[in-house]
Amino acid sequence: MENNEIENLIKMLARLPGVGPRSARRVALFMLKNKDEFMLPLSDAIAKTADKMIFCEVCGNLDTISPCGICENSSRDENTICVIEDVADLWAIERSGTYKGKYHVLGGVLSAIDGIHPSDISLDKLIKRTKNSDVKEVIMALSATVDGQTTAHYIADKIDNKNINISRISQGVPIGGELDYLDDGTLITAIKSRREL
Amino acid sequence: MENNEIENLIKMLARLPGVGPRSARRVALFMLKNKDEFMLPLSDAIAKTADKMIFCEVCGNLDTISPCGICENSSRDENTICVIEDVADLWAIERSGTYKGKYHVLGGVLSAIDGIHPSDISLDKLIKRTKNSDVKEVIMALSATVDGQTTAHYIADKIDNKNINISRISQGVPIGGELDYLDDGTLITAIKSRREL
Repeated sequence: MENNEIENLIKMLARLPGVGPRSARRVALFMLKNKDEFMLPLSDAIAKTADKMIFCEVCGNLDTISPCGICENSSRDENTICVIEDVADLWAIERSGTYKGKYHVLGGVLSAIDGIHPSDISLDKLIKRTKNSDVKEVIMALSATVDGQTTAHYIADKIDNKNINISRISQGVPIGGELDYLDDGTLITAIKSRREL
Repeated sequence: MENNEIENLIKMLARLPGVGPRSARRVALFMLKNKDEFMLPLSDAIAKTADKMIFCEVCGNLDTISPCGICENSSRDENTICVIEDVADLWAIERSGTYKGKYHVLGGVLSAIDGIHPSDISLDKLIKRTKNSDVKEVIMALSATVDGQTTAHYIADKIDNKNINISRISQGVPIGGELDYLDDGTLITAIKSRREL
């Protein structure tokens, strides 16, 4: 007995990542029960964000301007580019407050299974940026998965500027992690990449 | 580095049931990556649904009209009212196609812990409806929880029309359920409420 309007809304909500048909129904009902103080403001917020946010033409970050605030910020280190898969990774690194260089958002990682080829990610732009004499280091901050690491090696091969130092973020036991609960892969990596105390 | 607009959107999305701060970020990014074919239509669909859908003044169902299509449908049995907690329960029963009477949506169940009192749910309206001579049966289709069953008994006490038969949906082993995996409470209920074969 869902009505046409609400059926359509539920179908759209079910397309959101992490939301299935059942939770889409819950979400739609929650909205309708909080129409004035939540549902209408949410619709406005979505339209406003869609209108204002654009992807940076240089690095792929999301901002209201392009080039984005990070690319334009002259107090950030021009010599370092941190390569990430997604804007969410940029947010995570920014929240950590540990990095003061520039970024490059690939928008995905290479994957034979998912059919993601080099032309599907923002690779050419990155190579072009590394030809700039300012760049001295490229940090690969990609997932510690097969696809992520394959992509990191592929990119490293493509960067033919010998003056650039290519690094990747370390892999091992997460801080607070108990050995007992770690998967074998992480444990093997942690032992193999041990460092002197 | 989330921008103001997107930060506001993420905060709103995180209020949705089943969506936390992390998945709110994923949802916002998914939207921005599918701006024209998804984000703007979604904003429209939310606004349109908010505009069109209203709660039925008789039974509490959601529809574009009030009284709703079910209340107005003269081919449905006027003699039976099925009492449910939420509109989602109405949808579930309608999907099953097994019930052809009317509904009454309480909008919650009594709960001492959550501070939900009789005046917080749509109880007076239900009592008023049961005073109508047409009503012959009230089916309690509330959750098989302590709060749900307490509410069912409370309502049964309040209905002082002795001509009305008050029933509740059966409790026991769910169809397809294996005894081995059932909780003790369900098993005890199933054995106690056994029926002759």
